[in-house]
Amino acid sequence: MFLKNAWYVAAWSKDVGRDLLGRILLNEYVVLYRKEDGTPVALENRCPHRNLPLSEGRLIGDEIECGYHGMVYDCAGACTHLPGSAEPPDWATVRTFPVVERHGWVFYWPGDPALADEATIPDYPKHNLDEDWIRAQGQTYVKAGYRLVLDNLLDLSHLTYVHGSTTGNRAVAEAANLSVDQEGDNVRVTRWMEDIEPALAFREYAGYTNNIDRWQMSQFLPPAYININNGSVDAGIGADTDTRNNDQGKWGFVVYHAMTPETDTTTHQFWTVAGHKDKVPDHMRDLFVEQMHGVLKEDLDIYEAQQRAIDMDPAAPNRDANPRGTIPADEGLLAMRRTLRRLYGDEQKAEGVAAE
Amino acid sequence: MFLKNAWYVAAWSKDVGRDLLGRILLNEYVVLYRKEDGTPVALENRCPHRNLPLSEGRLIGDEIECGYHGMVYDCAGACTHLPGSAEPPDWATVRTFPVVERHGWVFYWPGDPALADEATIPDYPKHNLDEDWIRAQGQTYVKAGYRLVLDNLLDLSHLTYVHGSTTGNRAVAEAANLSVDQEGDNVRVTRWMEDIEPALAFREYAGYTNNIDRWQMSQFLPPAYININNGSVDAGIGADTDTRNNDQGKWGFVVYHAMTPETDTTTHQFWTVAGHKDKVPDHMRDLFVEQMHGVLKEDLDIYEAQQRAIDMDPAAPNRDANPRGTIPADEGLLAMRRTLRRLYGDEQKAEGVAAE
Amino acid sequence: MFLKNAWYVAAWSKDVGRDLLGRILLNEYVVLYRKEDGTPVALENRCPHRNLPLSEGRLIGDEIECGYHGMVYDCAGACTHLPGSAEPPDWATVRTFPVVERHGWVFYWPGDPALADEATIPDYPKHNLDEDWIRAQGQTYVKAGYRLVLDNLLDLSHLTYVHGSTTGNRAVAEAANLSVDQEGDNVRVTRWMEDIEPALAFREYAGYTNNIDRWQMSQFLPPAYININNGSVDAGIGADTDTRNNDQGKWGFVVYHAMTPETDTTTHQFWTVAGHKDKVPDHMRDLFVEQMHGVLKEDLDIYEAQQRAIDMDPAAPNRDANPRGTIPADEGLLAMRRTLRRLYGDEQKAEGVAAE
Repeated sequence: MFLKNAWYVAAWSKDVGRDLLGRILLNEYVVLYRKEDGTPVALENRCPHRNLPLSEGRLIGDEIECGYHGMVYDCAGACTHLPGSAEPPDWATVRTFPVVERHGWVFYWPGDPALADEATIPDYPKHNLDEDWIRAQGQTYVKAGYRLVLDNLLDLSHLTYVHGSTTGNRAVAEAANLSVDQEGDNVRVTRWMEDIEPALAFREYAGYTNNIDRWQMSQFLPPAYININNGSVDAGIGADTDTRNNDQGKWGFVVYHAMTPETDTTTHQFWTVAGHKDKVPDHMRDLFVEQMHGVLKEDLDIYEAQQRAIDMDPAAPNRDANPRGTIPADEGLLAMRRTLRRLYGDEQKAEGVAAE
Repeated sequence: MFLKNAWYVAAWSKDVGRDLLGRILLNEYVVLYRKEDGTPVALENRCPHRNLPLSEGRLIGDEIECGYHGMVYDCAGACTHLPGSAEPPDWATVRTFPVVERHGWVFYWPGDPALADEATIPDYPKHNLDEDWIRAQGQTYVKAGYRLVLDNLLDLSHLTYVHGSTTGNRAVAEAANLSVDQEGDNVRVTRWMEDIEPALAFREYAGYTNNIDRWQMSQFLPPAYININNGSVDAGIGADTDTRNNDQGKWGFVVYHAMTPETDTTTHQFWTVAGHKDKVPDHMRDLFVEQMHGVLKEDLDIYEAQQRAIDMDPAAPNRDANPRGTIPADEGLLAMRRTLRRLYGDEQKAEGVAAE
Repeated sequence: MFLKNAWYVAAWSKDVGRDLLGRILLNEYVVLYRKEDGTPVALENRCPHRNLPLSEGRLIGDEIECGYHGMVYDCAGACTHLPGSAEPPDWATVRTFPVVERHGWVFYWPGDPALADEATIPDYPKHNLDEDWIRAQGQTYVKAGYRLVLDNLLDLSHLTYVHGSTTGNRAVAEAANLSVDQEGDNVRVTRWMEDIEPALAFREYAGYTNNIDRWQMSQFLPPAYININNGSVDAGIGADTDTRNNDQGKWGFVVYHAMTPETDTTTHQFWTVAGHKDKVPDHMRDLFVEQMHGVLKEDLDIYEAQQRAIDMDPAAPNRDANPRGTIPADEGLLAMRRTLRRLYGDEQKAEGVAAE
């Protein structure tokens, strides 16, 4: 179940250039490259003549020459040259995808191009480019469906059990007040912890020796974006809603994730974890980056173990969507899943297709 | 086709401890561990909350804490703690399996716990723990269905062709008198060879220089146990039925196998080959152990080659059960397969399900 | 879709000997060996008793002894010995395949033996054994269906894009006159290029410094043979039809390919590229052999990338047979595919089976 009429991250900007990049996105083969003026392009990665991926060919100026029989396609997907012929055949076209580059990422739109509106690209990954922030960044290939990754990021009680050596401790799971707000398709899960012991990373980076007030705000935007704000202050100072949503207080960090399904059970996870340079002193930068890569690996092990367990269970497709039961901490992820199902139903209805 | 209401070996005792052991058994994911008092436990290896295998979590006393969101399960499969809540949810339960430890093995019962009767655990693996016996032991992961392994052990004419460098020679296949007895669900195949040349291992260990009388008794007990008694005496001395079933005469050895299906086409094979210390002199112990591991590997190559050939044949499911024809040496394995089909039919009938 | 009543190459002669060779051919498991008098034999590679591949057994004279329970089969597929029995069972037979050895290859006939006519074995691989020719030879395991390989060899405009460092240059794709002739089941595609720049290999081996007239003749014979004649002369000299079909002029080479499907999407490609010794001077022999192995590898990358792209496309089975559109250069391969479909339909009709 993938939303088609939505922007997805196709690649990190740095990975799209004058070498052809073939990548499977939403079960389709896509080729990415840059025109000579630097504009990124995304085309169907398949020559309609005999199915060779165009990424096996080469760029000639802004056009791709197929690596098999030399048919040439322009950025609009039209064939401009058939070797040995005066005229290219009119059936020889490849699909093009709307592409926008922003915040260090190349976004693409797999659905109806007429509906592609740049204004709906989430704006929050601004920290990707801001010099005042220290960043750990990456692209994780996940052998699990994209909703398992979204689930993870919308229930941060898992920090206690999955990330106990850095950002989690017992209080994170036990002592949080949870609130979930939905505005339109946007789901916001806030966890507020008063007068709790600081987790290890908070002591290391901020020098806390006493209890703290701590907050975690996970925001979901369809199809598959998550923005997390983590903050803390000395116990008793507290934080109002605006602070919880946007500031890190005395110590914290922000997290951005964009999940792009490769197939039903594999996902490209693009991510940034950023700490303001005031909160990550020079001598701790390498440690910060290394720790955050470690945190991502800990999560990866979880998603993939879930997917293996689900694959082993004949009834799993339903259990994944409708687990045997839910707990209060699921409220955010259930809102996310409801939102995705509703939007998917709308898309299917718009296409005149019965919902799956 | 697996019998469910039966005891299977889940693990060697030595492999079940205070580290969580996740293992696929009969197409289900099971987690094994020991309580602080040493009692082994087997639970469904899946948190009902979000499908993480419980083996990814950790033990707290006798209970498992899920490694994702910290839900805790006791040995009865009940949730005893939900982080951040006063009460665990009542839907949060995992299946438990009856477990019995005996003879160095941990047995589990995948079916209806009400039917689990310890008295039906086969008693013959007593040599696993007896100090008077020299043992080669192992656990072989077999990429073949468990019945292919049972077939092998119920037609020992294969020793001639598969184990010619140790326990088999031409006479074993050519000169045996076969008898098959069935008592209830127990199938006993006896091969009796009079005045034959001793195979290599018999000459090496027993010092035979002249012909021998030799016997092989393979006993099958459902769902998947095989006990083999191998014996020999100088030619002309002979052996009565009780001797053939229980004694090794001048030289021989005993074999115990417990097959536990992992999936339809993969099997955990737990095994012991034991020789009495009077029959395996000290300076030949290492050789004995090494040779018996070699014998098991020779058999493994056979099962897996069969399975590959069966997988390649669209009509194989039937051909496996009903080969193009049978030979007299198949009598024992055909009795075993009839027994399994009958018991499976009984189980299906008892569950009100049409036999597969 | 495989033609069954046809000769296929089963192996290079050098690979068939007194060691049993198991090989999957047309989705069937076949065992190949030589009798003591050197005659090659092909049998079904499966003991009808318990499915062990016969290639796991051993040769006794001209017969195979199964490696499991010692049943012996002769070259006619009859069981000649069952250990412990006076009479082999009459049901114990394995299929035999007609086999002919010619030109360094062992051919086999997977269909009705009554129809196997040696006269239909293509005669053109004579250069495999001729001392006047320098040969690069090989057997390439292709993870793609056999028709993708045939397609490649029937549209040589691909030399420009796939083999630009040796035999192809721009003129090969752009300046050729194409003609396709069909005689019965034989398709002949001739590409004739007048007054073109010589590709790199033509300059290296023949010393051309000026333009050339060049020809490529690809001949298809069912089920899956391709014979290619490549030749050239100084521009203006030209070449008549007989020369284009059979001679290499001042410089050129011949190519023979025999494709044998392993499965629907994997292929054994047997091949020879040969240059007359007058055209490949002694000091360039190693280079010639190395370059031609390189050319085959370049093609392999293409077939396998096509197959991956086809596998990714749910509608691919149809698109492979009916691509979105065709170009003039496809004329030869379309004739080949039509021929195969017609012959396959005839076979199905003869068997009273509706065409697939």
